[in-house]
Amino acid sequence: MQMTLGMLAVRHGCELRGDPDAVVTHVATLAAAEPGSLAFLANPQYRSQLPQTRATAVVLSAADAEACPVGCLLSANPYLSYAAMAADLHPPAVLSPGVAAGARVAPDGKVPLSCQIEAGAVISSGARLGEQVYVGPNAVIGAECVVGDGTRIMAAAVLYERTRIGRRCLVHSGVVLGADGFGIARDSSGAWTKVPQVGSVVIGDDVEVGANTTIDRGAIGDTVIGNGVKLDNQIQIGHNVTIGEHTVIAAFAGVSGSTHIGARCIIGGAARFAGHLEIADDVVIGGDAKVTHSISQPGVYGGTIPAGEARQWRKNAVRFGQLDELAKRLQRLEQLVKTLTGGRQ
Amino acid sequence: MQMTLGMLAVRHGCELRGDPDAVVTHVATLAAAEPGSLAFLANPQYRSQLPQTRATAVVLSAADAEACPVGCLLSANPYLSYAAMAADLHPPAVLSPGVAAGARVAPDGKVPLSCQIEAGAVISSGARLGEQVYVGPNAVIGAECVVGDGTRIMAAAVLYERTRIGRRCLVHSGVVLGADGFGIARDSSGAWTKVPQVGSVVIGDDVEVGANTTIDRGAIGDTVIGNGVKLDNQIQIGHNVTIGEHTVIAAFAGVSGSTHIGARCIIGGAARFAGHLEIADDVVIGGDAKVTHSISQPGVYGGTIPAGEARQWRKNAVRFGQLDELAKRLQRLEQLVKTLTGGRQ
Amino acid sequence: MQMTLGMLAVRHGCELRGDPDAVVTHVATLAAAEPGSLAFLANPQYRSQLPQTRATAVVLSAADAEACPVGCLLSANPYLSYAAMAADLHPPAVLSPGVAAGARVAPDGKVPLSCQIEAGAVISSGARLGEQVYVGPNAVIGAECVVGDGTRIMAAAVLYERTRIGRRCLVHSGVVLGADGFGIARDSSGAWTKVPQVGSVVIGDDVEVGANTTIDRGAIGDTVIGNGVKLDNQIQIGHNVTIGEHTVIAAFAGVSGSTHIGARCIIGGAARFAGHLEIADDVVIGGDAKVTHSISQPGVYGGTIPAGEARQWRKNAVRFGQLDELAKRLQRLEQLVKTLTGGRQ
Repeated sequence: MQMTLGMLAVRHGCELRGDPDAVVTHVATLAAAEPGSLAFLANPQYRSQLPQTRATAVVLSAADAEACPVGCLLSANPYLSYAAMAADLHPPAVLSPGVAAGARVAPDGKVPLSCQIEAGAVISSGARLGEQVYVGPNAVIGAECVVGDGTRIMAAAVLYERTRIGRRCLVHSGVVLGADGFGIARDSSGAWTKVPQVGSVVIGDDVEVGANTTIDRGAIGDTVIGNGVKLDNQIQIGHNVTIGEHTVIAAFAGVSGSTHIGARCIIGGAARFAGHLEIADDVVIGGDAKVTHSISQPGVYGGTIPAGEARQWRKNAVRFGQLDELAKRLQRLEQLVKTLTGGRQ
Repeated sequence: MQMTLGMLAVRHGCELRGDPDAVVTHVATLAAAEPGSLAFLANPQYRSQLPQTRATAVVLSAADAEACPVGCLLSANPYLSYAAMAADLHPPAVLSPGVAAGARVAPDGKVPLSCQIEAGAVISSGARLGEQVYVGPNAVIGAECVVGDGTRIMAAAVLYERTRIGRRCLVHSGVVLGADGFGIARDSSGAWTKVPQVGSVVIGDDVEVGANTTIDRGAIGDTVIGNGVKLDNQIQIGHNVTIGEHTVIAAFAGVSGSTHIGARCIIGGAARFAGHLEIADDVVIGGDAKVTHSISQPGVYGGTIPAGEARQWRKNAVRFGQLDELAKRLQRLEQLVKTLTGGRQ
Repeated sequence: MQMTLGMLAVRHGCELRGDPDAVVTHVATLAAAEPGSLAFLANPQYRSQLPQTRATAVVLSAADAEACPVGCLLSANPYLSYAAMAADLHPPAVLSPGVAAGARVAPDGKVPLSCQIEAGAVISSGARLGEQVYVGPNAVIGAECVVGDGTRIMAAAVLYERTRIGRRCLVHSGVVLGADGFGIARDSSGAWTKVPQVGSVVIGDDVEVGANTTIDRGAIGDTVIGNGVKLDNQIQIGHNVTIGEHTVIAAFAGVSGSTHIGARCIIGGAARFAGHLEIADDVVIGGDAKVTHSISQPGVYGGTIPAGEARQWRKNAVRFGQLDELAKRLQRLEQLVKTLTGGRQ
């Protein structure tokens, strides 16, 4: 797709400094851009690349415009504006509706004519797809699943029976939705009995689920993912977890069973939540944090055992790096005091 | 399925307080229960929900019965009793034997008539299934694999060649059994040569393997998972690991090559084991523990570098939260002593 | 395959002590070996098993030869020599060229006659395979992918569109190459907009990718994995990461977006890298290290917040285990000084 800078400025409400008729055809980094490229500057770490860029235009904040040698599209949120313009230049593939040879659709599965079902995909009994759903090669839609309009289930993703997923979602390859939660009860011999996992998974609209992420079905009742939630790769969501709208979670994070995470939270990579916690809206959790207690107030949290207020945690983290020095100072002090007191303890 | 309270009490050896003819049809949480629901109380965190429950009956301990406004099924282990009753009310789906159109069974693969093989499943050459085995859509059973009676291999799970798995197991979607272990040898140029992984994976009876968990084949000899082991999602088990009977492991845990874990161990989420360790029977490892040394005695262990006895570890963990205060007290003390000694060091 | 000790010694440049006509047919551990077995001794932890071994021959260093009761193949790098000999005794399966019934090859997909395509595999439009490529059951090769000669894509692995992979690679089951990176931009309401991920994944020659590992496609430009890189299971590589030649990474490690890792690095299990870092060649990162800063010098690094020089880090780690004792000593000292100063503070 190609766009003029004038069109981009108008469509996305940006001030343009430069030629409105100049054409861009693709996105590029500041460093790799060539004429025809649209670049952006959001992370200050890359500011030094701006003066040499060969892009046709750069999306950036007004403060950076002076240093820009080419066309400027000014935005208060350059990364957000860039995202929208990049979607103009690189729109997702248009569906080729139809059921490929080698796909298997159960006789009572509902697949509208506007859907694209790829080779090897399996649509099980009673599953119902909305309009313009994409089901990739070898993906599996379990019995009685419901998939909303415009949702894309990528190659080899698996939805267990009765999973419900909303509109315009994107479920990447290797994702498993609705496998059994880890519910086991121990008997007096030390052996374990499986606790039936009779709930399901319910996912809202505009949710993205990254590759190889797993979301377990509820033990009783459902595991619920709110509208607009974005999950990175290799995340584990336990049974009966709920996640509020527009919360985002980075790779390797894990949420144990029955923990409820609020709306608009930002969870760092490899953060881990114990079970049965309540996390408020608008909470930010640092990467690798181990959250063992509920959090009732919005704010930034990180660290371990339990997650403390961020400021205190950062102080401790700095001290950890000084621990060896700390212990040496203490030894020195002990010697000094010993001398001072003539060896009495 | 529906059951009377009397039937449940008799079948599971519970004392009943309430109407033996009252009928329950499904399980529910204390908070969401309605007439017809069977609920349970095991975690004291939920005790406050008991007085308002609308369940027909609650499985609980004798100590909690007084506060229960509805029928009581008394058990010394309410969660275990609940698990068994839930399985009565929500039995697993009965198999629909047969090989679906679109499944591929090698001519020399052995698939009894009692098995259910779903669309897209692949049963490779020389594989042998027991009676009443379920192989889900797009699951892959490699060459010469052996799968025991009643085992279920869910959608898109993969068994590499020569994997052997026992009876009544449940292998969830995205699981990979028998991929190569991470065996590489470095040459003098810094490049790496692959070490052939010629062993296999052997899994006992009544084992559950959670979604996207990986168990590597042995380098020499087999990786062995004992009877009754329960593995959560996204676990990694290295080559030539052995895990004793009835050990359970939570999500994200990892066991490096040639480590041997005993029977009836309980391993917390994201716990990590170095290679070539010996872990005794009846060991409990806390979540996120990094185990770098062998453990010869039963007990509770946690923490880092290396895992220490739990009590000491908890003390250290508390101190970690006080580190900043500790350092400040030390500074104060140093000043004081400096004054005391007239500035001599 | 069977080999004489003489053949092995000649082929792999080892000094032989023992009967050159003795035959070995398979590899085994020192403890489990029987006549006909080839064993090796590289890890000193297993030296005690040498005197009792029943192997026909053992690959070991000259220093260990004296204690060896059977044939010796002497090597300066016994594990490397063993790897090569094991590959002689246990060569990978020879391909059975052809496209299995139930595989789906797009009309414009290029699949040479020397390739083996298994049941349920999907070769999408415009994909081009080299000679002697293996595509396992239910694996998915996306549109416009390029796969080099001799590469093996195991069961149920997924390559998104435009992934390019070199020669003699091994991609294990459950691997996802080229899913979207985690690129999202927040608007003023707190909702997130997806940033199109328009780059791809480019993998060199002789790369191994472990089961369920995920490598995201570039946001702009490509994610690049160099020749000879070996990745263990369940690793996450973010968008626009580059990894230099012959670097190896253990299970559960994660590299955030736009971080560049040099050549010949060794990365421990569950090590995590923040985004936008530069890591030099020949860097060794300990298991569980959290790397938050760039590293410009070769060396051994480990620990947390940020990764420090290894020696200092190890000292701190030891001190962490002494923290409780440390705090008690401090308390004692404070009491002593209080006494000394008559209670004045």
